[in-house]
Amino acid sequence: MLKVPDHQVAGHQAGDGKLGPLIDDSGHFYKPLQNDGRGSHELAFYTSFSTDTRIPDHIRKFFPVFYGTRHLEASDGSGLYPHLALEDTVSSRINPSVLDAKIGSRTWYPQAAEDYIIKCLKKDRETTSLELGFRVSGLRVYGNKETGFWKPDKKCVLNFSIEDTRLALRKFVSSNPSTDSDIKPDCSFASAVYGGPAGILAQLLKLKSWFEEQTIFHFYSCSVLMVYEKESILQGRNSGAEIKLVDFAHVIEGKGVIDHNFLGGLCSLIKLISDIVTSSA
Amino acid sequence: MLKVPDHQVAGHQAGDGKLGPLIDDSGHFYKPLQNDGRGSHELAFYTSFSTDTRIPDHIRKFFPVFYGTRHLEASDGSGLYPHLALEDTVSSRINPSVLDAKIGSRTWYPQAAEDYIIKCLKKDRETTSLELGFRVSGLRVYGNKETGFWKPDKKCVLNFSIEDTRLALRKFVSSNPSTDSDIKPDCSFASAVYGGPAGILAQLLKLKSWFEEQTIFHFYSCSVLMVYEKESILQGRNSGAEIKLVDFAHVIEGKGVIDHNFLGGLCSLIKLISDIVTSSA
Repeated sequence: MLKVPDHQVAGHQAGDGKLGPLIDDSGHFYKPLQNDGRGSHELAFYTSFSTDTRIPDHIRKFFPVFYGTRHLEASDGSGLYPHLALEDTVSSRINPSVLDAKIGSRTWYPQAAEDYIIKCLKKDRETTSLELGFRVSGLRVYGNKETGFWKPDKKCVLNFSIEDTRLALRKFVSSNPSTDSDIKPDCSFASAVYGGPAGILAQLLKLKSWFEEQTIFHFYSCSVLMVYEKESILQGRNSGAEIKLVDFAHVIEGKGVIDHNFLGGLCSLIKLISDIVTSSA
Repeated sequence: MLKVPDHQVAGHQAGDGKLGPLIDDSGHFYKPLQNDGRGSHELAFYTSFSTDTRIPDHIRKFFPVFYGTRHLEASDGSGLYPHLALEDTVSSRINPSVLDAKIGSRTWYPQAAEDYIIKCLKKDRETTSLELGFRVSGLRVYGNKETGFWKPDKKCVLNFSIEDTRLALRKFVSSNPSTDSDIKPDCSFASAVYGGPAGILAQLLKLKSWFEEQTIFHFYSCSVLMVYEKESILQGRNSGAEIKLVDFAHVIEGKGVIDHNFLGGLCSLIKLISDIVTSSA
């Protein structure tokens, strides 16, 4: 039984006759292949990555498992359409809090078409990408049964300043993620989610070590998804904090050079999260 | 007694009636203050940096010591002109080999004037800056008494491809830094210059650790200068390998964000040098 995922925080969304991702009960996430070249590009990445023996297991787990392509009834009602079948790391969770950070101060690659470069450069300058090395593309933070999720709308998120971004990273791990700017986020889940040997910071540092060495791929316009389950923490269990890289429509070959653009942005994200962990300890 | 330094590998050069840096016998390097705002900008940086107590000593030594400003007879014969008085870390050496690497895939800062941004972006795309995260701005490598220095001309260096850059970093530590492309650089000084606990790689890694944390300054269009003395190695003494950051006309405030642009490029340089050390071990 296919349905539209309700946890999505960024990217094309299905519903209202639009083409977007679908999920099923077996833990799969189906992403329609965009037909402007991006789809085939992303498929080529998943095919290449999933069989590349140079990727260590402790890094591979930061990427969704790829199950090939499936022809499914598209969400826009246009009939059978090719989809990437991927591991769904979010929908299987209970009230997952999710943050999508698009990494890199530059979302375009040197060989891209000129009009694409101009479009990306404009957006990189209008958002925090250029100054901060990444931008938040979306987030939703679970409050409780009454309040449900705090989910700022897309336009609001795209207008985030550096200070808004810092605040969003604090709200993401707070019990009071209100839109009310008078309420200071308490960061009460910072140590459970960001900190500790299995926390998000530790995972990001592992990813960083790999990016200091790997020269196989350059990841443009790729996001780090951060997920955890608040109720799991409140019940004294593991936070389920996990990072996943997503969106590979603009991955190019590294040709022996490290992905300094992704690495720089990743280090900036790490610094901001590290500051939160330190100040909440 | 002021004279024109002969070790300079990049930047404005004095001589032929042009305004450029001067040196004296007391180990000072005098850099004329550029009068388009860059000069006062660089002066402001040195003034601020030299009194900033947040800079640890093991990082401060990577920057030239600043001795204030001096009014000196300009090299272009135009009379008295203000100069920055800096530590000269090169001229006091015997036949120093020098490499200047301008760090960062982006040499422009977000607040710069639009025409300046366009000019920089063009040059970043034409050189290796964009793809590699840095570009070699100049180098000279000492051969021996007969051959003197191998110093590719400025135009040739600006046209370096990524492969040329990799090769230049190998030639920089080779006993046969010939322009003849058939001769493979032997990298015989790689371990003495790049490697070891006091080598250039170790120094770059210390600098990297600081850049992962520091949010005080963002260094645009700034270079890492690498220097060593070949004859010192051949005589069984220390290589004198040293890095110095130079050119601070485009340093801006960090405002709580790390310099991900510099850090990414620095990591790319580190990877290339690390590859040379590993393959020469």
